Amino acid sequence: MTRIGILLFDQVEELDAVGPWEVFGMWARACPEEAELVAFAREAGPVRAAKGLTLHADRGFADVGPLDVLVHPGGAGTRPQLKDADHLAWVRDQRERVPLMTSVCTGSLVYAAAGLLAGRPATTHWGSLDLLAELDPTIKVRRDDRFVDDGDMVTSSGISAGIDMALHLVARLAGAERARKVRRNMQYDPQPPV
Amino acid sequence: MTRIGILLFDQVEELDAVGPWEVFGMWARACPEEAELVAFAREAGPVRAAKGLTLHADRGFADVGPLDVLVHPGGAGTRPQLKDADHLAWVRDQRERVPLMTSVCTGSLVYAAAGLLAGRPATTHWGSLDLLAELDPTIKVRRDDRFVDDGDMVTSSGISAGIDMALHLVARLAGAERARKVRRNMQYDPQPPV
Repeated sequence: MTRIGILLFDQVEELDAVGPWEVFGMWARACPEEAELVAFAREAGPVRAAKGLTLHADRGFADVGPLDVLVHPGGAGTRPQLKDADHLAWVRDQRERVPLMTSVCTGSLVYAAAGLLAGRPATTHWGSLDLLAELDPTIKVRRDDRFVDDGDMVTSSGISAGIDMALHLVARLAGAERARKVRRNMQYDPQPPV
Repeated sequence: MTRIGILLFDQVEELDAVGPWEVFGMWARACPEEAELVAFAREAGPVRAAKGLTLHADRGFADVGPLDVLVHPGGAGTRPQLKDADHLAWVRDQRERVPLMTSVCTGSLVYAAAGLLAGRPATTHWGSLDLLAELDPTIKVRRDDRFVDDGDMVTSSGISAGIDMALHLVARLAGAERARKVRRNMQYDPQPPV
């Protein structure tokens, strides 16, 4: 059983969280013996996301329980986190406990500020690539990658890239056939019209 | 000013609602004089979505106010709506009031059950194409289209197709340049890995 936690916080970018949620949710619904999904935040309850939607965390840090995968989304709410000693300490503690740490968009800035990306390849939203390098000059910034799988650390580029990263993780954790089924059920045959 | 309402209900599919929310939210945030976005439901408050995430409706039917665009998502919650006389009457009433009615995924089944698609081209999730035709045999079911723009009625195929439909609508309502900017800010250069 893979237990996946998606972190919510004030000013989280909606699709950063809900893109992976949909992908992992499809997997968990089809194969409840394989995967379980939980939305959590520092405290259980509502958070106001970056584009104004209110999302609800079912668990808080205190009762979320052990996770196999953590997804740290991005959004405007990551900016205060970069200087929030409590949040950075929590992130470092998660690195000790959670085998697979992942981020969407500017979530990787928080990992960088916490020191988790030292000497490692990583990416982020195109608009924050320079900031990622400034936060930790030892990071091997991958400017052109949709996501970067570095084993126990997987980072993705901006917002919608979380969908591709999550599909990759389903393939890695449960096989390509399972991931293809999720993709088909989401009818994820994107055709950007502009 | 274009006022866009995204309908929430129990068992709404998460990405059906949040994909368009992110697209329109990017537009509204960049150009607050052009677009405004509201999440609403029969009653204001929380709804439990199909993959278990709780989303919050800021307004109820009684106080959502006039809309220029309505987005009816799909999800398991549409099945009871197909036989819910109150919901179908509300949908018909919206058709009288809202210039541009749109749907994602199985949201179009509800429009079909309400009689709104009679004689018109439309689409839905691939798994519900036959049901769409059964609900109203006069519908010209478009099995291969990502979305169908029929003027005052725009329907999309499954789940992730709502993102493409919403980008199309931004282009239609505000021009291709605006839509391209939204796409770039979402870093929507999809690369499905499986």
